Amino acid sequence: MSKVIKGGTVVTADRQYKADVLIEGEKILEIGENLTGDEVIDASEAYVIPGGIDPHTHLEMPFMGTTAAETFESGTFAAAAGGTTMLVDFCLPGADGSLLNAIDDWDRKSKDQICVDISYHMAITDWNERIFNEMETVVKERGINTFKHFMAYKGALMVEDDEMFASFKRCAELGALPLVHAENGDIVQELQQKYLAEGVTGPEGHAYSRPPEVEGEAANRAIMIADAAGTPLYIVHVSCEQAHEAIRRARQKGMRVYGEPLIQHLTLDESEYFNKDWQYAARRVMSPPFRNKEHQASLWAGLAAGSLQVVATDHAAFDDQQKRMGVGDFTKIPNGTGGLEERMAMLWTQGVETGRLTPEEFVAATSSNIAKILNVYPMKGALVPGADADVVVWDPTIKKTISPATQKSIIDYNVFEGMEVTAQPRYTLSRGDVVWAYGQNSQPQPGRGKFVKRAPYASASKALSKWKSLNTPRKIERDPMNIPSGV
Amino acid sequence: MSKVIKGGTVVTADRQYKADVLIEGEKILEIGENLTGDEVIDASEAYVIPGGIDPHTHLEMPFMGTTAAETFESGTFAAAAGGTTMLVDFCLPGADGSLLNAIDDWDRKSKDQICVDISYHMAITDWNERIFNEMETVVKERGINTFKHFMAYKGALMVEDDEMFASFKRCAELGALPLVHAENGDIVQELQQKYLAEGVTGPEGHAYSRPPEVEGEAANRAIMIADAAGTPLYIVHVSCEQAHEAIRRARQKGMRVYGEPLIQHLTLDESEYFNKDWQYAARRVMSPPFRNKEHQASLWAGLAAGSLQVVATDHAAFDDQQKRMGVGDFTKIPNGTGGLEERMAMLWTQGVETGRLTPEEFVAATSSNIAKILNVYPMKGALVPGADADVVVWDPTIKKTISPATQKSIIDYNVFEGMEVTAQPRYTLSRGDVVWAYGQNSQPQPGRGKFVKRAPYASASKALSKWKSLNTPRKIERDPMNIPSGV
Amino acid sequence: MSKVIKGGTVVTADRQYKADVLIEGEKILEIGENLTGDEVIDASEAYVIPGGIDPHTHLEMPFMGTTAAETFESGTFAAAAGGTTMLVDFCLPGADGSLLNAIDDWDRKSKDQICVDISYHMAITDWNERIFNEMETVVKERGINTFKHFMAYKGALMVEDDEMFASFKRCAELGALPLVHAENGDIVQELQQKYLAEGVTGPEGHAYSRPPEVEGEAANRAIMIADAAGTPLYIVHVSCEQAHEAIRRARQKGMRVYGEPLIQHLTLDESEYFNKDWQYAARRVMSPPFRNKEHQASLWAGLAAGSLQVVATDHAAFDDQQKRMGVGDFTKIPNGTGGLEERMAMLWTQGVETGRLTPEEFVAATSSNIAKILNVYPMKGALVPGADADVVVWDPTIKKTISPATQKSIIDYNVFEGMEVTAQPRYTLSRGDVVWAYGQNSQPQPGRGKFVKRAPYASASKALSKWKSLNTPRKIERDPMNIPSGV
Amino acid sequence: MSKVIKGGTVVTADRQYKADVLIEGEKILEIGENLTGDEVIDASEAYVIPGGIDPHTHLEMPFMGTTAAETFESGTFAAAAGGTTMLVDFCLPGADGSLLNAIDDWDRKSKDQICVDISYHMAITDWNERIFNEMETVVKERGINTFKHFMAYKGALMVEDDEMFASFKRCAELGALPLVHAENGDIVQELQQKYLAEGVTGPEGHAYSRPPEVEGEAANRAIMIADAAGTPLYIVHVSCEQAHEAIRRARQKGMRVYGEPLIQHLTLDESEYFNKDWQYAARRVMSPPFRNKEHQASLWAGLAAGSLQVVATDHAAFDDQQKRMGVGDFTKIPNGTGGLEERMAMLWTQGVETGRLTPEEFVAATSSNIAKILNVYPMKGALVPGADADVVVWDPTIKKTISPATQKSIIDYNVFEGMEVTAQPRYTLSRGDVVWAYGQNSQPQPGRGKFVKRAPYASASKALSKWKSLNTPRKIERDPMNIPSGV
Repeated sequence: MSKVIKGGTVVTADRQYKADVLIEGEKILEIGENLTGDEVIDASEAYVIPGGIDPHTHLEMPFMGTTAAETFESGTFAAAAGGTTMLVDFCLPGADGSLLNAIDDWDRKSKDQICVDISYHMAITDWNERIFNEMETVVKERGINTFKHFMAYKGALMVEDDEMFASFKRCAELGALPLVHAENGDIVQELQQKYLAEGVTGPEGHAYSRPPEVEGEAANRAIMIADAAGTPLYIVHVSCEQAHEAIRRARQKGMRVYGEPLIQHLTLDESEYFNKDWQYAARRVMSPPFRNKEHQASLWAGLAAGSLQVVATDHAAFDDQQKRMGVGDFTKIPNGTGGLEERMAMLWTQGVETGRLTPEEFVAATSSNIAKILNVYPMKGALVPGADADVVVWDPTIKKTISPATQKSIIDYNVFEGMEVTAQPRYTLSRGDVVWAYGQNSQPQPGRGKFVKRAPYASASKALSKWKSLNTPRKIERDPMNIPSGV
Repeated sequence: MSKVIKGGTVVTADRQYKADVLIEGEKILEIGENLTGDEVIDASEAYVIPGGIDPHTHLEMPFMGTTAAETFESGTFAAAAGGTTMLVDFCLPGADGSLLNAIDDWDRKSKDQICVDISYHMAITDWNERIFNEMETVVKERGINTFKHFMAYKGALMVEDDEMFASFKRCAELGALPLVHAENGDIVQELQQKYLAEGVTGPEGHAYSRPPEVEGEAANRAIMIADAAGTPLYIVHVSCEQAHEAIRRARQKGMRVYGEPLIQHLTLDESEYFNKDWQYAARRVMSPPFRNKEHQASLWAGLAAGSLQVVATDHAAFDDQQKRMGVGDFTKIPNGTGGLEERMAMLWTQGVETGRLTPEEFVAATSSNIAKILNVYPMKGALVPGADADVVVWDPTIKKTISPATQKSIIDYNVFEGMEVTAQPRYTLSRGDVVWAYGQNSQPQPGRGKFVKRAPYASASKALSKWKSLNTPRKIERDPMNIPSGV
Repeated sequence: MSKVIKGGTVVTADRQYKADVLIEGEKILEIGENLTGDEVIDASEAYVIPGGIDPHTHLEMPFMGTTAAETFESGTFAAAAGGTTMLVDFCLPGADGSLLNAIDDWDRKSKDQICVDISYHMAITDWNERIFNEMETVVKERGINTFKHFMAYKGALMVEDDEMFASFKRCAELGALPLVHAENGDIVQELQQKYLAEGVTGPEGHAYSRPPEVEGEAANRAIMIADAAGTPLYIVHVSCEQAHEAIRRARQKGMRVYGEPLIQHLTLDESEYFNKDWQYAARRVMSPPFRNKEHQASLWAGLAAGSLQVVATDHAAFDDQQKRMGVGDFTKIPNGTGGLEERMAMLWTQGVETGRLTPEEFVAATSSNIAKILNVYPMKGALVPGADADVVVWDPTIKKTISPATQKSIIDYNVFEGMEVTAQPRYTLSRGDVVWAYGQNSQPQPGRGKFVKRAPYASASKALSKWKSLNTPRKIERDPMNIPSGV
Repeated sequence: MSKVIKGGTVVTADRQYKADVLIEGEKILEIGENLTGDEVIDASEAYVIPGGIDPHTHLEMPFMGTTAAETFESGTFAAAAGGTTMLVDFCLPGADGSLLNAIDDWDRKSKDQICVDISYHMAITDWNERIFNEMETVVKERGINTFKHFMAYKGALMVEDDEMFASFKRCAELGALPLVHAENGDIVQELQQKYLAEGVTGPEGHAYSRPPEVEGEAANRAIMIADAAGTPLYIVHVSCEQAHEAIRRARQKGMRVYGEPLIQHLTLDESEYFNKDWQYAARRVMSPPFRNKEHQASLWAGLAAGSLQVVATDHAAFDDQQKRMGVGDFTKIPNGTGGLEERMAMLWTQGVETGRLTPEEFVAATSSNIAKILNVYPMKGALVPGADADVVVWDPTIKKTISPATQKSIIDYNVFEGMEVTAQPRYTLSRGDVVWAYGQNSQPQPGRGKFVKRAPYASASKALSKWKSLNTPRKIERDPMNIPSGV
């Protein structure tokens, strides 16, 4: 049975035009004028856009002694409710250190639970021969072409520079893309101890101990290591001018570096941590912390300029009870906030409605760019015949005040609470199924989501690989006569 | 009668995929696998790309006391031979100062001559009420949404800052895009006089009198004026790091500024002017002049990073005889070189084959980006159903050494002479017609080209306009009690 | 009769040390321990520093249809009261355009009036052969080695780029230093008209019409022109990051560019113009206008980093009555504020007391650096035997709240009113005379001040001149066989 | 017995003037005109400058399995022959890890050997409580106020980020200044292994494995750590734009960071490593390696702009035999070259004679700036009464071609061999003794040099300390009602 989305304005990363979208099964069959289908989905006075892709979530993540409250079911349903039809979750190796076992573990957790499609980034939290070997299987058999490296969380997830180099080099060989969480873990830990010692135990200590310079430094370091290893690099949750500057500086040298700001950093600022209500402030604790308005301006400009490409959420939702683990010691507050449900509406409201971004740039930042980077474009992130029918009817006339009372996320608060948004998904389709219809009491459909495999060797990887092989320094040929005997 | 381009790999600005392209009349009807048509065009082992767009040409331009030798016929045929299916030529007002008359004049020259499609940029070389008024007609009736401003050529084409501001503001009102030739004309003239006075009369004086700082300054100034006037800006022939740096600096503040390097500046350097053969050096005289290798590296990085968007040619071809007007005085050498026939092959060879650019970035830089900027996308610059069938079968297996003997350009030399390229258009189609078939003795088809009208209010213009209107400084309301009587 | 300043800590631009200063007549005779003299000046618990030099004042300046209220007598006495012992005033040509006549005019005004020493910068507000010729006399006979150029005040003082180039080149020949007021006068005028047309008539319109980008652009342009002309450059009243960035960018290329922030821009911000009281806001109208806190941070960092060298005031004091000329039209508010009396105390309080600057950097910024730049060091700006005994006993224990009631400046308000300073001159000596003693009812001593002649060819000028002559582009020698006959 | 240096032009960091210098014993007694003394030293047609200070030497250093061939005697005599009267050598802890024992060891080596004065930087190559405690003694009793940290030489001297932070914080407490060798040791080691594995075993591998990005990264990281720890920072041997850029970026934020280029990096380039003669290339192996001309231009500009302050040598001279330890494996070539004898003449010739630097800037870069940074100014680095009589009569008329045959350094080659210099010390005086007279067969006077103690809390340290204490983030005071019970 076919569906036709009628009467809307299609917006993609490259253009806007009036057209209907005809869906047959899981795929887009045709886009054009005056199409007909078995079922009509009304898009009049609305935009029709590719379903959002949130490339940065942590559902049911075991972390800091607890597990993120947001489940694969609740998270993927909240995503759908916000216009997002694909998540990429971070798969963390467990105590046995095996990447493959970790994937199996993640599969067990997500299986039968997910309402929209997902994929994984694989985390490299240690370095040894087994990991070296498993990486190949992860890429070639499991369909994961991205590896995450934490430069923070010392004593837990953090890797050292030589480990990063080794892993990045392995990525280059496999055509995979390394990702980094860029904060200097050594210095964060030192500053945490300093502020605790000075009696700063509340959530503001979280912000103080992770200043922008600490993030900028790590971003800069990761870029150098990626350049030395001959691989592109993707820097997650770029929150500040310092990291953004490092990215720009690299890009203007021809290095292939991507930056991902979060919707939280674009729209919330550090004053949140100074709130007199501990619980209010603790809910906002995430890493990197929110920054001041100058940093926000930098991130917005980066999205328009193309020096930053993707807007994500780092959705890692801990409930109030969990946050209270850090009463008396901010370093024990589980790091993470929500946002996957609000990402697209917030970006539209504060980005497109203000004129900072064009509608096309909105689509690029919410789906197309990351789909290209992850090498799943145009299956995802595009509206073209043959693509997955992950489509959103985006209604710019629905005003809504964000409230935990109406959200689909499982947690008991919302960091955007009280903020008004001026657009919402009228319908969200995931591979042809309507998984969300605004105001129609949609319910989760766990189990219908699929895992998306992603092939290595995206176009930029291939180009960089060619450049590096043509520009490798060469041995100087010397006449043996001109080489003395050694000592 | 339909045509099908079979067996190739379609490359667009966003992806590569195996597909056939079915053409019906002037338009692309369908793209997909296993398509059939009346006529088959073989694309096996080749890429299928949108026809190139060269947004910067001066055909038959009256300039510096002569007229550019390249005609609309020879130029558009050379373009086709190089894989370019649309040119945008600069229309210069004549002695009467009228924009509308100038368009009529350009139409007279191009009518019945052009082998592929063209459009015009309108030059603003003076400022008065008539021009102010005619601009509206130019945009709304003549379909020209771009206005060029020369900051150099003092006493001839140059406009002053207040004139630029007035014109830019007018552009903002009309949804048109201002372009600038960025060199400080005052200082160029002073330096010309200085070097002539010092006895430097040869072509090297051309380079000395137009140093990178002089270009960077003007780019920076134009950007400030565009920002004050509330309009995006397009800077033509960005040749150096200084201008590129100004563009990056603006973009990182959220300003909407585009930069266009030329294929000449990407691949030729200033040492050309120091050639002992006067004629050799004089052939290379264009403004801005070629720069050193550091500047080239900057431009290439900009194309990969997205801080520069378009590769053009500034094709303004004067023959040897014309160049000799400047023997004994470099300031009298007609400024201009060729390149529209070699642009795409040179960019492929030195960009894609080296790994500096991906094939997608090549397409973006040669057609898609400028089509979006000029607001003719996806009619031009795209391969989608409904688009004009301006298509090139791009063969990466044809090696060729550039030579004036084999070129279609009318002039008697070639600035790329002796350089090898590693790709050529196997077929070039303009709105469905094969206008060039490699090795098959194709002949010019003058008169079949059309003028392409372009609507104002491209997406970026609209966004910026919204941003500016929301962020206009507001009057401070004061109680009349708090305002004293004046003097 | 000798004087000895006893018991203080001498602070110069390069060090601090306990020492007495012995003065004989107008000169410093000796600096050392346990010195004796006829008269003892107590410096216990105080610093002993070189008298301040304010290189940017406009006393009794005819401007915008009126004349600055501050006289040479009141201004130089206020200076002394603030610890400043030398002013450099801007000498503006009158209706006849003669530089020499202007100097005579300024001499007439200042003669018998000045309480401390002064010198002049000569303004170049037009360009012709007479000015070209007079410049030599100004430098060689009148002892003025600096020429000021206004890039703003269109229709009045402003010069065009070619005029600037010509004048800068003349400066290079004469070993003189060009100064610029960097704002794009064309765009300022356009923005003024725009805001007036929109009904913004109050003082806030002054700030809106002179945004930081307009200043940054002009600074960047002046730098390019100075580089092309082969001369160092001094940019007055650098108020914003944009201009500072241009200066840094130039300096990191080896260009010799100096930047002078004003004490007002370091300590006051743009919110002053939004004050609901018109007169309050109008008093603060000066060009460039005050900026926001980010710009202030940039300027302070520049002083510590050495990218900015001098703190001045642009003292041009118009009284309330004069300011009211601009009621109903902000473009008619006479541009200027005071500050020469508060400069040193404000800089100490907000610079040294906060740890932004060392005491040595304070001395460098208030006297030594400008003395070197103006080539009067160590006669002025230093504490060494043989130097003029322009010495201040700087008492860091005197707290004071700035108030027009207690100021020596003639005008009826103070832009720093209500701000607290934490240091004051206990004694100010001008060539050996005590011209100010804190709390002792000092009176002006008009007529004792002298005009200070300044020789050309400061050290940096000589070095740059050598560099430029060694690096001039050279003519390419061509065999006549390789030069065709011309056309 | 007094000496008078007669007839010269005194050049200091702030000025030039004709004067005689009268010396009594070890000190300067007076500077002025027409002075007389028991002995006359002729300075006619010459400059009289402060003796050079080379703050970066490794004499008799045990390193990489051997010991630097240059001894304290030969090194200090070569210094004197080049116009340098004070060295600061790096004191490295031995196997027992004790700082105090290391100083004793260095004292033993230098005692009775040194011909001019020396001081030590103390190296921190590990971190533990003993080191923490000994640092206080090193500063307060041994008179060493600088601590060096190696970010390279993994497995040997290198320290980790948390160790650096701890040591930097300790420096801040003690008023001492941390120094860093900025190269990422992890990545250097990885690249060494990579190139060796690829068969690049010659000296060129040294350059390839230590690219500029690796240095820039480490500089950037050290700056962040210093900022977090609240201390100024001094970066030794800044060789490239990347590190220089990081320094500029920090300084423009108000951070107090110093950069020290070496005379080698200013004048020699990376092509040296591509020499076909292995021994030639191996002699030039030092870390960081020589860079290309663009980096040289950056360093020169930094000296003029003040973003770099000091020119040193990193003199660590290994002889040909020692260099041959690395035949077949470039990582085993002892790192180090000479230069302390040539530093001043090379800087004068390529800096002052070209117009890049003024004579005053030459003095600042060779002695005054480092004397201030090390807090021994004006005892060293100045020509003022009371200062140590470390004085050089600098003769700009002596031309000389550098040759190992005539050098005083003990090693058998010279990296500047064959280069011409245009100035030499006519006389070098160390605390009043003539230790070098050009062309007069001067001999070493071992044992007359002294160790120079340096007090902590230089002026910049004090200012930064004040700034940091005023700007420490503050605890947010929350009502206990607003803090929940923990979990």
